[in-house]
Amino acid sequence: MTQSSIPHDHFPELQNPSRLLLGPGPSMVHPRVLRAMASPLVGHLDPYFLEIMERTQELLRYVFETENRLTVPISGTGSAAMEAAVANMVEPGDQVLVCINGYFGSRLVDMAERYGAQVQAIHRPWGEVFTPEEVEQALIKFPAKVVGIVHAETSTGALQPLEEIAKIVHEHGSLFLVDTVTSLGGVSVGVDEVGIDIAYSGTQKCLSCPPGLGPITLGSRAIEALHNRKHKVANWYLDLSMIEKYWGKERTYHHTAPISSNFALYEGLRIVAEEGLEARWERHYRNAELLWDGLDSLGLEAHVAQEHRLPTLTTVRVPKGVEEAQVRARLLKDYNIEIAGGLGELKGEVWRIGLMGHSSSRENVTLLLAAMGNCLT
Amino acid sequence: MTQSSIPHDHFPELQNPSRLLLGPGPSMVHPRVLRAMASPLVGHLDPYFLEIMERTQELLRYVFETENRLTVPISGTGSAAMEAAVANMVEPGDQVLVCINGYFGSRLVDMAERYGAQVQAIHRPWGEVFTPEEVEQALIKFPAKVVGIVHAETSTGALQPLEEIAKIVHEHGSLFLVDTVTSLGGVSVGVDEVGIDIAYSGTQKCLSCPPGLGPITLGSRAIEALHNRKHKVANWYLDLSMIEKYWGKERTYHHTAPISSNFALYEGLRIVAEEGLEARWERHYRNAELLWDGLDSLGLEAHVAQEHRLPTLTTVRVPKGVEEAQVRARLLKDYNIEIAGGLGELKGEVWRIGLMGHSSSRENVTLLLAAMGNCLT
Repeated sequence: MTQSSIPHDHFPELQNPSRLLLGPGPSMVHPRVLRAMASPLVGHLDPYFLEIMERTQELLRYVFETENRLTVPISGTGSAAMEAAVANMVEPGDQVLVCINGYFGSRLVDMAERYGAQVQAIHRPWGEVFTPEEVEQALIKFPAKVVGIVHAETSTGALQPLEEIAKIVHEHGSLFLVDTVTSLGGVSVGVDEVGIDIAYSGTQKCLSCPPGLGPITLGSRAIEALHNRKHKVANWYLDLSMIEKYWGKERTYHHTAPISSNFALYEGLRIVAEEGLEARWERHYRNAELLWDGLDSLGLEAHVAQEHRLPTLTTVRVPKGVEEAQVRARLLKDYNIEIAGGLGELKGEVWRIGLMGHSSSRENVTLLLAAMGNCLT
Repeated sequence: MTQSSIPHDHFPELQNPSRLLLGPGPSMVHPRVLRAMASPLVGHLDPYFLEIMERTQELLRYVFETENRLTVPISGTGSAAMEAAVANMVEPGDQVLVCINGYFGSRLVDMAERYGAQVQAIHRPWGEVFTPEEVEQALIKFPAKVVGIVHAETSTGALQPLEEIAKIVHEHGSLFLVDTVTSLGGVSVGVDEVGIDIAYSGTQKCLSCPPGLGPITLGSRAIEALHNRKHKVANWYLDLSMIEKYWGKERTYHHTAPISSNFALYEGLRIVAEEGLEARWERHYRNAELLWDGLDSLGLEAHVAQEHRLPTLTTVRVPKGVEEAQVRARLLKDYNIEIAGGLGELKGEVWRIGLMGHSSSRENVTLLLAAMGNCLT
C-alpha cells in the first residue's frame, strides 16, 4: 500500500452498538466517566494534572482501604499491574509460591518464571478456595519470598478468604501478593486490615472505568524489598522505583501518563466515594443474590458453592444439551447483552456473568434473567 | 483512613484548563478523537470491536508506510512500545548496538541491558545525527543482532536520516530497530522503503490522540527472530508472540485491550487518512518553517542545524540571562500555552516546542510567537 493510495472512505465513522456489558469486564462505564474521558488534555507535568494525580492517589487509598503511600495507577491494564507486582518483587532465584485455583493463578506462575523465580504452585479445583492450612504446609516445605494468590478469580467466580492466610504468610516472613482485579470496589479488599503487602487491580471491573489503568499498592515490607533489590527491576516501563518518583514529590519524568484515562479514573473514584464503599459492597451483594435466586428459578446451577461465591462475577453451569456459544450469540444479537463463556478448564462448561460497578443494578439483573429465560427455551 | 471517613466533597469535579499544547507531547487532541474517547464501550472480543481492530491495523500500516502483518497498538504508552521492541528482539547475551545522541537513545541502552543484552553505544553530541560510516565502523568492531536508533529525538529536535544506515545494518545481518515516536504521522518514516525491521511510536504526538497506546510494526526478519527465540520473551504483558494471536485470526485472549483508547486511535488515524500523509507531512514542515523564521525574528537561535532539524519538535536555545522556567511559567499562566524545558544534557539550555498533529497550525505558531515575544521583553 503506498502512502497516497488508502481509500479513506473505507473507514466508516464509529457507530458503537449499545451493549449491556454483563461479562467479566469491561463493565458498564458511568456516563460521567465517559465525559471525563473526553475532557480536554493538559500536559503530564501540568500543575493541574499533578493535583488530579494526588487526589486520585488519595481516592485509590480509600478503595484499597490502605494508607500506603505508594498507591498509583500503572499505565496499562490490570495485567500490566499484575506484571508490575511480580517484576518489582521478584529477582532471579527468588522462591515464589503461587496458589492456583483458576486461570489467573497460572498467569502469575508464568510471569514469575519470566522474572527468574523458582516457582512452586499449590492447586485447588477451579471454583474452590484454599484453606490456611494448605498454604502453611506449602510454606513449611518451600520457604518463599513471595506468596501469590487471587482474591477474586474472574475465571471461576470464587472469592478467596485472605485474613488467616495473610497471618501465616507473615509468620513465614513472606510477602503477600494479592490479585484484586475483580474485587476492588465491589468487595472489601482491606489491604491494611488483612495485611496485604502488594495488591493490584484493573479499572474496567468494579471501578467502572474503561480498561487502560491498573491500580497497585505496596505496603512498607514490599517497598523495603523493592529498595533492597540486588538487581534493577527487569522491566523498565513497570519499574516502581522510577514510577514512584513521578508520582512522588520529585515528579521526575519517566513516561507520559495516559492523561485522559487518569481523568476518567479520578471521576470513577469520585463516584465510588460518593456512594461510599460499604454501600457499594452491599449493592453488589444484593444484586448478586437477586441473580443467584433468578438463575435458580431458571433451573440453572451456580458453579461455586454459595459460601465462596463472588458477588461480582458468577459462573453458571451450562445445562446438558445446550450450546453455550449459541445462547451468548442470541443474547448479544437479540438483546445487546454481553456475557462470557468459560475460560481455560471451564471453557464450554460455564457462562460467566459479571455484575460489577455500574453494571450491578436491579434492572440489569432483571433484564438479563428474562432474556436468558427466553434464550434457553 | 477508614472506608467510611473519606470526605467525598474534597474531590472537586474536573475543570480542566484550556491549554494549548505546544510541548513535546501530548499534543492537541482533535475534537473528533475526544468524542471517540467518550463513545460507549463494547467488550474486547465483541465482533464490532474486532472489526475496529482490523481497520485500525490497516490504518496503522498506512501511517507506518508498510505492509507488515504484525502492526498493532501496544496497550501502553510509547515507552511501553519501545520496551516491547527491545523485550521481543533481545535475549540474554545478544549484542545490541545503540546510537545515542539524546535522551531516548540512553533509554534504549537501559532497557536492552535489563533484558540481558551486551550493549555497545556510539555517541554524537545532543542535536547532531549519525553518519552511515560511524554505524558501519561500529558494526565492524561489534557485530550486533540489533541496531537501535532514534529517528526523531524528542530531547534534541534532530531528525536522523535512515536509508543509508538501514543498508549497512542489513549488510551486517543485523536488525534495524527505530524509534519513530515523534515522527510517525508528522514526517515520513517509510518502514518498508527504508527497510526498518522494528519501528514503534506513541499516539500522543503526531497522531494527536491521548497518550495510552504505542503503535509498533515488525517486518519479516523481526518476526523470524521473534519466532526463533530460545527463551520466552522476558516480559509477559508485552510478549508479541501472544499479542499477535489476539490481533490475529485466533483472537486468543491475552489481556483486555484499552478499548476506548483504541476507538480514539481509530478516529485519529481516519483523520490522518482524510488529510493524506503527504499533505500532512507538508503541513508539519510548512508550520515548522514559519516557527523557525519567527524565532529568528525574535533573535532566538535554534539548537539544531537547519538540515537536520525536526519539523515536529524544535529546540530553541535559551538566551543568556533569561530564566527559562520563568518564561514557560508565564506562557502557561498568561496564555495557557505549554512548551517544555530541556531534558537531560539540555536541561536549562533550551526550550522544546512541539508542532505535532493537530497542534501544527498557522494560528498556533502565530500565537506562540507573539506570546513568546511578550514574555521575553
